[in-house]
Amino acid sequence: QSNVTLYGRVDLSVGNLKDKVKNTSTTQMFQGGDGGLTTSRWGLRGTEDLGGGLKAAFKLENRFNADTGASQDPYFKGESSLSLMGGFGEVKLGRSTTVYDDVRGLGQSRDVFDSAFTASSNGVFKSGGDYASRFDNKISYYSPNMGGFYAGIDVSLDEKAGVSQDKYAFKAGYKQKEFEVALAHQNEKDKSDKYTALAAMYDFGSFSVSGAYNQRKGSAANGDDSEYALGVTVPVGAWAFSGGYAYSKTKDSAGGAKNGKASGFALGATYALSKRTRLYAGYRDVVVKNNVGAKTKDERLVAFGMRHDF
Amino acid sequence: QSNVTLYGRVDLSVGNLKDKVKNTSTTQMFQGGDGGLTTSRWGLRGTEDLGGGLKAAFKLENRFNADTGASQDPYFKGESSLSLMGGFGEVKLGRSTTVYDDVRGLGQSRDVFDSAFTASSNGVFKSGGDYASRFDNKISYYSPNMGGFYAGIDVSLDEKAGVSQDKYAFKAGYKQKEFEVALAHQNEKDKSDKYTALAAMYDFGSFSVSGAYNQRKGSAANGDDSEYALGVTVPVGAWAFSGGYAYSKTKDSAGGAKNGKASGFALGATYALSKRTRLYAGYRDVVVKNNVGAKTKDERLVAFGMRHDF
Amino acid sequence: QSNVTLYGRVDLSVGNLKDKVKNTSTTQMFQGGDGGLTTSRWGLRGTEDLGGGLKAAFKLENRFNADTGASQDPYFKGESSLSLMGGFGEVKLGRSTTVYDDVRGLGQSRDVFDSAFTASSNGVFKSGGDYASRFDNKISYYSPNMGGFYAGIDVSLDEKAGVSQDKYAFKAGYKQKEFEVALAHQNEKDKSDKYTALAAMYDFGSFSVSGAYNQRKGSAANGDDSEYALGVTVPVGAWAFSGGYAYSKTKDSAGGAKNGKASGFALGATYALSKRTRLYAGYRDVVVKNNVGAKTKDERLVAFGMRHDF
Repeated sequence: QSNVTLYGRVDLSVGNLKDKVKNTSTTQMFQGGDGGLTTSRWGLRGTEDLGGGLKAAFKLENRFNADTGASQDPYFKGESSLSLMGGFGEVKLGRSTTVYDDVRGLGQSRDVFDSAFTASSNGVFKSGGDYASRFDNKISYYSPNMGGFYAGIDVSLDEKAGVSQDKYAFKAGYKQKEFEVALAHQNEKDKSDKYTALAAMYDFGSFSVSGAYNQRKGSAANGDDSEYALGVTVPVGAWAFSGGYAYSKTKDSAGGAKNGKASGFALGATYALSKRTRLYAGYRDVVVKNNVGAKTKDERLVAFGMRHDF
Repeated sequence: QSNVTLYGRVDLSVGNLKDKVKNTSTTQMFQGGDGGLTTSRWGLRGTEDLGGGLKAAFKLENRFNADTGASQDPYFKGESSLSLMGGFGEVKLGRSTTVYDDVRGLGQSRDVFDSAFTASSNGVFKSGGDYASRFDNKISYYSPNMGGFYAGIDVSLDEKAGVSQDKYAFKAGYKQKEFEVALAHQNEKDKSDKYTALAAMYDFGSFSVSGAYNQRKGSAANGDDSEYALGVTVPVGAWAFSGGYAYSKTKDSAGGAKNGKASGFALGATYALSKRTRLYAGYRDVVVKNNVGAKTKDERLVAFGMRHDF
Repeated sequence: QSNVTLYGRVDLSVGNLKDKVKNTSTTQMFQGGDGGLTTSRWGLRGTEDLGGGLKAAFKLENRFNADTGASQDPYFKGESSLSLMGGFGEVKLGRSTTVYDDVRGLGQSRDVFDSAFTASSNGVFKSGGDYASRFDNKISYYSPNMGGFYAGIDVSLDEKAGVSQDKYAFKAGYKQKEFEVALAHQNEKDKSDKYTALAAMYDFGSFSVSGAYNQRKGSAANGDDSEYALGVTVPVGAWAFSGGYAYSKTKDSAGGAKNGKASGFALGATYALSKRTRLYAGYRDVVVKNNVGAKTKDERLVAFGMRHDF
């Protein structure tokens, strides 16, 4: 069947989550997204050459919890899209990641593999829990690479009569072989939070680094957040070692109850059994403090796992 | 994998739905079935040659909303069937479209591509909202082509002890290269409505036409419905242009409160970028009036979209 | 696509279920698992050679009701697993059948095809309704074949802080070409029931037999169950004929209200239209009596069906 490629990934790990505030410890199997490298998935994708430099493409991607076999919701949570591509760039319709989420990914790309082990995950970056990584009903335009420069814009239609709650995101970046830097902004008009991300990556050959600065101009309920992360990844043969550090500071213009600080530290290693299969281990330590400096979260994750692509 | 074919379709459009009764207007992304050519789907199908002219076949088809990635319910809503085929025709078990629905499809085949733009859709044909297009627990027999004549029958088992609520449908038709006419009837014994459809298609080469006459002998809640539709499609190179008109009249033997009239007018065009990919535009205008002539619906749909088969 | 195999099975039958206690009779379409050979399914699986005798494998299997198109829940109910295999055996992570369930399957393998027609199904083996055939969050180790001997162990992590409700199962067996015997035990620590199974199979060439003895050390709510089954299967060309008998006795250490007896008798035949497609017929008669000898269930199933693998 040449029109469609069936692909996927199963990622499972076993580890321990220690809650140092509640003083509990749980040994668990993780489905990947919650304590491993990536969420498990299967999907269908294809590209058709329409002639004249024009191409059509589609992608449908289910996400599931491999530890229990449960599908995540909606069914094609990962992506459900249709694209038309050409010299002009790409127009994509449907559900897929926002360009803002792409730039966040770049900023964590060397920070323990942009995984559940990444230092900024699990509450260190407060914005992580409330921005939309994907938009439904989205019309996107991605520019072609213009001498290294690229840009993209997303518009998600609110589909409601009498209100104006479309969501927007845009990004602009510059990419060379060893270097990439990008800026993005996301505005979800159905809530008052606005998100800005600045991210960069540099590959020095024997190691590579990524850095992120995010800013949330938040609602009264969320507060304003300033977020910083740095990661380094070192490939050694079939191994890749990585470490990351993340820090955030939340300010509350209203009263101060939202004020707080959070930090995370993470280490990880992967070992490639083949191009498609790797074993991995990860460690992540997260501390979140409220406006009077009390720890509201102090959590340590350690896990060992396996990831297989097909 | 020779035993199974993986196939599907992604259909997405962007347009405007104007409600002239409420005086609202909404710009939307449509998943196809609600404002485009067809509902998006993916499926598995296969045929096995058993020798002696006998074949086994199966089809499993999921329908989904491509604008949000949500699966429709049940999972294999489109079809979930197993067939045995031979010189005797075909016996099919499981869930699939009724033969009555097939004939309705024939009657709208040239009426803006039997799509969301079709003149009779969205309330003009009152029966459209209450007949079952597919039966579960269905045993079907489809005759072979007998000198142009064909027939089919569906029985859906009620699976309840002590009641007799099986559902039935049958069709009979005649088909030549340029011409097809068919009659169908559907009786869903768990409600008192009965449906009859007469449909025809003629292909004149430079254009083709389809016509439909449906009749619902309805329950007190629904009333009796007489429904008429006419469509014409003109292919011009990679383009196809189509227009349709539909009209219905509802009579209420009880009091008269169900009396009413409805009409729809539709225009559409498709442009084939390839055999598998097309761009399209459509327009549909629907007016529904109640027993005193007041408009209960006055709606206009305009949308532009893309459909890709794989 | 060499990395993944798409496979499945559609099994549908039509038959009659007669409840001789309520004196009702229902003609139904069965989805396979409830009145046919097996539950319908589709799945993805693959194996990757990692070199050095090591292999990675995955399997994702959805189960669905082919009569209505509904997916069973969770989505990959059949299996969702990732394995690493080598000379040491196999380590499997995720959701899949327990080794105890494997041994139960062996004990019914010649008893009308381990299907819905199997004599012990539908209430004769009381344990059938309450043991977990699959574990989530499971770590399994399966030994290699060691001169005919094999063993396996399952551990399912409870994933709860402060409790110890992991589930366990193990099996040990011996297998030759014509003969197999195995013992298994399952302990689900979130309830007080414990399950033990002893199973054997012998293939005499012109016919083969299977036998099962199961024991449930039950909670107060369930009682203790002793279960026996015998089955014989006779292949004749494209046909296979099979019959089975099962019996169980429940003892209640507490009061006696749980005391009771149950028996089942079953007959079936399959006819292979090809390697992948078969027609079948089955008959199953089940009687369950309570502590005073009154029939609480007296049920007869007759069905004819078709099963197709892809």
